[in-house]
Amino acid sequence: MGAPTLETFPSPRPEREYVVETRFTEFTSVCPVTGLPDFGEIRVTYVPADSCIELKSLKYYLIEFRNRGIFYEHVTNQILDDLVAACRPRRMTVIGDFSVRGGLKTTVTATYDRDPSPQGR
Amino acid sequence: MGAPTLETFPSPRPEREYVVETRFTEFTSVCPVTGLPDFGEIRVTYVPADSCIELKSLKYYLIEFRNRGIFYEHVTNQILDDLVAACRPRRMTVIGDFSVRGGLKTTVTATYDRDPSPQGR
Amino acid sequence: MGAPTLETFPSPRPEREYVVETRFTEFTSVCPVTGLPDFGEIRVTYVPADSCIELKSLKYYLIEFRNRGIFYEHVTNQILDDLVAACRPRRMTVIGDFSVRGGLKTTVTATYDRDPSPQGR
Amino acid sequence: MGAPTLETFPSPRPEREYVVETRFTEFTSVCPVTGLPDFGEIRVTYVPADSCIELKSLKYYLIEFRNRGIFYEHVTNQILDDLVAACRPRRMTVIGDFSVRGGLKTTVTATYDRDPSPQGR
Amino acid sequence: MGAPTLETFPSPRPEREYVVETRFTEFTSVCPVTGLPDFGEIRVTYVPADSCIELKSLKYYLIEFRNRGIFYEHVTNQILDDLVAACRPRRMTVIGDFSVRGGLKTTVTATYDRDPSPQGR
Amino acid sequence: MGAPTLETFPSPRPEREYVVETRFTEFTSVCPVTGLPDFGEIRVTYVPADSCIELKSLKYYLIEFRNRGIFYEHVTNQILDDLVAACRPRRMTVIGDFSVRGGLKTTVTATYDRDPSPQGR
Amino acid sequence: MGAPTLETFPSPRPEREYVVETRFTEFTSVCPVTGLPDFGEIRVTYVPADSCIELKSLKYYLIEFRNRGIFYEHVTNQILDDLVAACRPRRMTVIGDFSVRGGLKTTVTATYDRDPSPQGR
Amino acid sequence: MGAPTLETFPSPRPEREYVVETRFTEFTSVCPVTGLPDFGEIRVTYVPADSCIELKSLKYYLIEFRNRGIFYEHVTNQILDDLVAACRPRRMTVIGDFSVRGGLKTTVTATYDRDPSPQGR
Amino acid sequence: MGAPTLETFPSPRPEREYVVETRFTEFTSVCPVTGLPDFGEIRVTYVPADSCIELKSLKYYLIEFRNRGIFYEHVTNQILDDLVAACRPRRMTVIGDFSVRGGLKTTVTATYDRDPSPQGR
Amino acid sequence: MGAPTLETFPSPRPEREYVVETRFTEFTSVCPVTGLPDFGEIRVTYVPADSCIELKSLKYYLIEFRNRGIFYEHVTNQILDDLVAACRPRRMTVIGDFSVRGGLKTTVTATYDRDPSPQGR
Repeated sequence: MGAPTLETFPSPRPEREYVVETRFTEFTSVCPVTGLPDFGEIRVTYVPADSCIELKSLKYYLIEFRNRGIFYEHVTNQILDDLVAACRPRRMTVIGDFSVRGGLKTTVTATYDRDPSPQGR
Repeated sequence: MGAPTLETFPSPRPEREYVVETRFTEFTSVCPVTGLPDFGEIRVTYVPADSCIELKSLKYYLIEFRNRGIFYEHVTNQILDDLVAACRPRRMTVIGDFSVRGGLKTTVTATYDRDPSPQGR
Repeated sequence: MGAPTLETFPSPRPEREYVVETRFTEFTSVCPVTGLPDFGEIRVTYVPADSCIELKSLKYYLIEFRNRGIFYEHVTNQILDDLVAACRPRRMTVIGDFSVRGGLKTTVTATYDRDPSPQGR
Repeated sequence: MGAPTLETFPSPRPEREYVVETRFTEFTSVCPVTGLPDFGEIRVTYVPADSCIELKSLKYYLIEFRNRGIFYEHVTNQILDDLVAACRPRRMTVIGDFSVRGGLKTTVTATYDRDPSPQGR
Repeated sequence: MGAPTLETFPSPRPEREYVVETRFTEFTSVCPVTGLPDFGEIRVTYVPADSCIELKSLKYYLIEFRNRGIFYEHVTNQILDDLVAACRPRRMTVIGDFSVRGGLKTTVTATYDRDPSPQGR
Repeated sequence: MGAPTLETFPSPRPEREYVVETRFTEFTSVCPVTGLPDFGEIRVTYVPADSCIELKSLKYYLIEFRNRGIFYEHVTNQILDDLVAACRPRRMTVIGDFSVRGGLKTTVTATYDRDPSPQGR
Repeated sequence: MGAPTLETFPSPRPEREYVVETRFTEFTSVCPVTGLPDFGEIRVTYVPADSCIELKSLKYYLIEFRNRGIFYEHVTNQILDDLVAACRPRRMTVIGDFSVRGGLKTTVTATYDRDPSPQGR
Repeated sequence: MGAPTLETFPSPRPEREYVVETRFTEFTSVCPVTGLPDFGEIRVTYVPADSCIELKSLKYYLIEFRNRGIFYEHVTNQILDDLVAACRPRRMTVIGDFSVRGGLKTTVTATYDRDPSPQGR
Repeated sequence: MGAPTLETFPSPRPEREYVVETRFTEFTSVCPVTGLPDFGEIRVTYVPADSCIELKSLKYYLIEFRNRGIFYEHVTNQILDDLVAACRPRRMTVIGDFSVRGGLKTTVTATYDRDPSPQGR
Repeated sequence: MGAPTLETFPSPRPEREYVVETRFTEFTSVCPVTGLPDFGEIRVTYVPADSCIELKSLKYYLIEFRNRGIFYEHVTNQILDDLVAACRPRRMTVIGDFSVRGGLKTTVTATYDRDPSPQGR
């Protein structure tokens, strides 16, 4: 897909494990089955390593889903993969919180950890 | 019971432990003692293994309780058993959050874990 | 006291550790010092072993406090003891959340555990 | 200070570790610098050992701060010390939650533990 | 920068690990790219060692950002560094919770610990 | 339709124009097009003349819509007509407040007035 | 009924049409059919003529309904009649706002006007 | 514009002045200046004459704005004109309630009246 | 009473009927019967004629009630009389909204009109 | 003052009396007495005649108050005068809703009417 480039800038305190959370309340894509629009909120929470995500490029990246047909579970995992590739964080969680469809309200949560703890789970 | 088949589709990231939560705010069944309708919200939270639950079939499955006589404690455990059988998740929690009856508001929470931790509890 | 019998029924999944929470928002008793009515909410949360509490008998049990003179700390502990005796749960918590008196709002929380963890606390 | 005596009564279940929380929403004292009134809420949470705090005497104790000049950090620690001395609890937390002054809203939380865990923190 | 001096006063209970939280709901700075004003809330939570931060000087320190051009990630880390230098706390967290820009709402959380636990993370 | 009889009882103050409002939060019917269940809240507000509606019979009357296929605009007007016929009030308003369907939330309000004001509107 | 006397005191500004509103959030009576307790809030709003209702006597008057069997429509009209008889106001409205019973929430509003406007309605 | 046809159906009570209100919470269009998406809620309230608006066709009509460049003031007036043309109501109000842009939140309200009152305003 | 002088300043638009509303959320006085503190909020709404009330002097005026014994109905009417005497407004309303006492929450509303409409009421 | 020009554009329906409401939640100016910043929300509601206010120029106009020393009553009336001069509306209301200062929260409401009704008030 020819999505806009996600830009980054150097973390102002690369040695510190601080947390950045950004919520995009105006996410919309298209249901691949019905062709009707879906709506939701995307929440990105991460601990930067060397780079932070530039917010304006994040916005343009998320707007690009506006006319794509894609399922909830795919959207959330895809955004996580793209953001991890762009800024190489210590840890990141992406939450897709989608609006009601047919009485069902669905949220998908996917997490990346550069250094997973040895004991799993 | 001749409930509709719960359908599934392959997880887009079967190797990742992500979480899907779905709330159905329009659950209704019938009290087996009085014959009067009960109302509530069903919340399903799970970590898929290889399969995700297809949401439309989940809705039709839950609508099927509309005219069945069944107690709160049974409803919640039954839904957990049926969903676990359908999608074989890593972990799943089902919460039945029922509306007020005689001044009492009741919630039932049941959990399944494919790989329970050894120390119990 | 000649309170109504608390009735129980067999747990539909005695082998599973699921949780039942019931809130009674219309609790009232009498202050033993002033003789004036007290109001509050009683919340019961428990993990059944073999038996569940039948909700209608729970309601009648709680209504019975309407004209009894009793302190907040006693009410909450007494309800815990009576419910544990009736249904022999794995674990149970009773919370008495009482309304404002003289600018003070008070909550009492008491817990029972059939198998307390060895290290205490 | 000639504050009213904090009274206590025997715990109805001295062997049980239950929790009592009391909120006093009408706390007021005086700023020692400006002489202007301060307002806030005091929340006391404790696990009784042998004694419970009698609520009416607690109210009179807290009202006594009405015309005293005292800082936020002092108020909260002083109330903790006085209440611990009066009822000798297993554990107690006092929170002073003060109203906005100059755009700043401040909360102070102080905790007492009769049997602190060996590893600290 | 010629910011006002952050003043401190001795902790009333230097031996006790109590918590002070202060929220400043009227923070504003300037976006270094567009020159437009940014708004947000700064929350400071800390466990004092020997000194507490004097609140009026904290307010004047935070007001000083009003006409400075600075990014969200820098603001939060800078405030943490300045406050740690001023009062040498046991632990401190600074949260910058900024208002919506282009549909994105961003929060930055940075933490200092005088005695970090050995196992990291 | 063989709906249960709506029962009434004599107004305790037939000469006074007082108002009774009753909300039924658990209304459900069936969409005549899709066969899927609809949910909503019915609010009845009226000024009795000689008779008041008996609440238990009102509940049974409203439950009877559970398996009927009927549109929102019809439901609300039908309930108004049936209640007016049953209790002959001075004035009555029925509001049907239905849950979200396809992103649309709909409310229908119908009013009866025994003595409409001469100037219309 | 041998209810406590409603006491009054002279209005501090008998010539001014000011409004007094009092809400009693802890009203309870008994359903005359089932014998089960009812709960609700009573709101009294009035414009005094020469007398104001003394609040403590109002509280004792309302507590007296605790063990009386009486319907919602009667309760509200009875309280209006008793309060009008006691303080002879210019105008008064009594609202009985009762808690949910069988999914139905009911409010009754009754009004008295010493000098009703000539055109009615 | 080739928008989908707005469909109607006969009012079930054409002689009665009842009110239908429908909210569409997922409206989106495009800013004609920046090309960026706008979001908002459209609320339609009307008194039918002979026809009601069919809700599914209303949804498809509103979805059609998804990729059109149009200003807030135009959107709201255009929807009013189109809906009035489709169902010829007695009265109708359309409210466009748009999300925050640059710190500004804007709402536009336009009204149609088939029989405006003679005195204007 | 030796209350602080209420100060005023000239209205910036004496010919315009604009409205000023000020809420003081930290009002406290003393109950003349029990000697216990009362708390509440005072809301002042007025249309200035030639003068506006200076806010700092209003605050000091209201703080002065802190240790006075006075009833709710008197407080509200007294504040109205004092403010009208100080700034001679076109119209003014004072609302005293007092906190819960014995389950009763009371609000008093008093209004002044320089040019009352001829038909009264 | 050299404020940015308020720009306008032609109303899309100059013959219709529709309403535009815009809220600016990030208003800040400076107190002319203390030199400290003030914060608040400005709400503009108007019925256009021939012209609408262009929103981006409105934002830049309001930002310009950031470093001006000005009282609440002046701010609100000044904004009303400037906006009326710019777009010559049928009617306009400006509300300045300012944040808490010293426990006092103040709102100023000023209104313009091109064609005031003859009977005044």
